[in-house]
Amino acid sequence: MFPPTAPPLEKTLARSYDDVLAGIPAALATEGFGVLTQIDVHETLRAKLGVPFRRYKILGACNPSLAHRALQVSLEVGLMLPCNIIVYEDGTGTVVRAIDPTRTIAAEHADLRPIAEEVRAKLARVIEQIA
Amino acid sequence: MFPPTAPPLEKTLARSYDDVLAGIPAALATEGFGVLTQIDVHETLRAKLGVPFRRYKILGACNPSLAHRALQVSLEVGLMLPCNIIVYEDGTGTVVRAIDPTRTIAAEHADLRPIAEEVRAKLARVIEQIA
Repeated sequence: MFPPTAPPLEKTLARSYDDVLAGIPAALATEGFGVLTQIDVHETLRAKLGVPFRRYKILGACNPSLAHRALQVSLEVGLMLPCNIIVYEDGTGTVVRAIDPTRTIAAEHADLRPIAEEVRAKLARVIEQIA
Repeated sequence: MFPPTAPPLEKTLARSYDDVLAGIPAALATEGFGVLTQIDVHETLRAKLGVPFRRYKILGACNPSLAHRALQVSLEVGLMLPCNIIVYEDGTGTVVRAIDPTRTIAAEHADLRPIAEEVRAKLARVIEQIA
């Protein structure tokens, strides 16, 4: 018997970075996540260090109801919020990947495991939608 | 023999939330961190859910040189960047706490342990300075 395989949180697409990036907010919205923060890694490293780097963004996604429930269990969960989605160029394609909250939030706070599993399932459906 | 105790990443101050918050960017800057993102948890929960919540902010801090080094080891480290600092009201005082990258970044990528330890030491000095 093998354990059930968790649905993937990562995908490589044969589409442009700009195109993939543009579709992420709508995919997140279907699972109740808004994009609260955006970091342009390529631009930040260019501006601060003058170094070249592939095009790469970190989107900070938040489902307010689930965040509120998690914060009521532990105020410290803000250390691991929002849930990051990374998007970066990889050759002619684009990689998109979401944080696995069962490996971060639930690892620190066992009481948060049910919420972390719910968030993980939602993020996996978001990744699945991005096609 | 006891193992050496890691310097703390958390502090409770007998000062107002606004006052503590105002001092954090300068403390971070002494260790090379800028504040790339800010989430007002109180305001987000009020606006999105209409629920009351204590005053609470999540600051996303980034040391560009260390982030660049970490990204060269593993592109996936962006899932755990920036480094969060949480600040919240606690009665008449204020709690400030930084993420421990040796428990998040280094737990996922053993090759990143030296950088995670360097970042942890820097964040501990930032917290120490906030008085």
